[in-house]
Amino acid sequence: MHPSDSPQRDPGDAHSVRRYRMTIAYDGAAFHGWQRQPELRTVQQVIEEAMRVRLGQPIHVQGASRTDSGVHALGQVAHFDAATRIPTERLASAITSRLPRDVEVRDVVEAAPDFNAISGAVDKQYRYRIWTSPHRPLHERDRVYPCHYPLDLDAMRNAAARIVGEHDFAAFAAAGHGRASTVRTVFACDIEPAGSDDAPELHVVIRGNGFLWNMVRIIAGTLVEIGRGSRSPDLIDTLYETGDRSQAGNTLPAAGLCLEWIRYENDPPPDGT
Amino acid sequence: MHPSDSPQRDPGDAHSVRRYRMTIAYDGAAFHGWQRQPELRTVQQVIEEAMRVRLGQPIHVQGASRTDSGVHALGQVAHFDAATRIPTERLASAITSRLPRDVEVRDVVEAAPDFNAISGAVDKQYRYRIWTSPHRPLHERDRVYPCHYPLDLDAMRNAAARIVGEHDFAAFAAAGHGRASTVRTVFACDIEPAGSDDAPELHVVIRGNGFLWNMVRIIAGTLVEIGRGSRSPDLIDTLYETGDRSQAGNTLPAAGLCLEWIRYENDPPPDGT
Repeated sequence: MHPSDSPQRDPGDAHSVRRYRMTIAYDGAAFHGWQRQPELRTVQQVIEEAMRVRLGQPIHVQGASRTDSGVHALGQVAHFDAATRIPTERLASAITSRLPRDVEVRDVVEAAPDFNAISGAVDKQYRYRIWTSPHRPLHERDRVYPCHYPLDLDAMRNAAARIVGEHDFAAFAAAGHGRASTVRTVFACDIEPAGSDDAPELHVVIRGNGFLWNMVRIIAGTLVEIGRGSRSPDLIDTLYETGDRSQAGNTLPAAGLCLEWIRYENDPPPDGT
Repeated sequence: MHPSDSPQRDPGDAHSVRRYRMTIAYDGAAFHGWQRQPELRTVQQVIEEAMRVRLGQPIHVQGASRTDSGVHALGQVAHFDAATRIPTERLASAITSRLPRDVEVRDVVEAAPDFNAISGAVDKQYRYRIWTSPHRPLHERDRVYPCHYPLDLDAMRNAAARIVGEHDFAAFAAAGHGRASTVRTVFACDIEPAGSDDAPELHVVIRGNGFLWNMVRIIAGTLVEIGRGSRSPDLIDTLYETGDRSQAGNTLPAAGLCLEWIRYENDPPPDGT
């Protein structure tokens, strides 16, 4: 059965095939991204392997976001179909018990037969962590991007405000993104001071209905260049007009990026909105 | 020259041998502890190697605490003797630039000729992090001890208060500690709720004039058993009387432990005391 088709369902049989929705958290440092690739350690591969052992059947897990190598997730979402006598409320811990220590299934619930983790997503939030302390990140070194330049918060916020809205983000997409349309809607883009006095950070927190390949890392890189004063916030508008990737900032390293959550139609709204 | 002897000093010659005091932070996860050992990656070894390259001379670095394999430090202290034309205020960054990314020299200052990192220490603070969330630590997995039992904070605080003072800590020392006296003075032992609502932790924060081998990890293990209700806080007094290691709690894993700071005579007092 193709994984994005609806499962057959027979309410009278507890072992009939059902569709499930799964939430997954992982430290991306030691993974070659989400998606299964031959010979490489990926999140999808270790989860499918744990489920094969635990559920006694091969399972295809369809993830919502193909996070790149080194990118982290607190709330990746996936769907899968399975027929199992393990009670739904115990599936998450049953699968997690077979997973390596850098990944965890946080939650599994039964979903509507047509629930689709990719096409049903209406809102995603990513966080990019910029480490602004003069000290080395040490413990955090695989989870932040250290920036040694002073950053102008006002300029960055001015530019971040221009990211919000429906725009053609062609200039913010890596070559080979493979999408017919580069128009996306960003619902919010905030610059948040974070960390502690000893270890200050600046976070770029961005929510939207979809993101092109490397889009968040290129937006973060462009905001850093504006924060350093190398470019003015007007650059954002110029980039929408020209669509010229070479005029945008660098793609910042994967380590700083975390997929925080994904929301679907009929889900409760995210906190604070 | 033996490293703990005073260096020869000639104030008229900028390149004469001087004694320095160094503060070092590291993520202990990938180190076999502080102390140099043949064929193993240790903090002392990588620092001495960086200094040999950067200062153009073999340097012996004498660390205050022989932290075990996997134990972290924010404020390890060491002394060394060197003749160098690198200005003192630039030594820390000069050495750090040659260090791997899981260690950093935070500070180097010129010290009195008789400054000794080991014998001069009057106060040390360690923190042991207990992860109390039902979720996996993921990013924090090499820096915390996950505890899946509910812990009684009042019982732990009652027991922690009995750790404070001058006591014979024989029951809290690993076999082979090699010290003639097992009497030490603990200045403070606090149980601090920490972390966030999503990722709660309980920290055992302990300050004293010296610690026996594994003493903090055994104290933390004993406090956890008392917190779980397996033993009563009276156990602490019994342990002072019997000196029986087998009656104390387990040695908790190295990952949860961090050496926070070391204070020397004439140093300013630690924050909040």
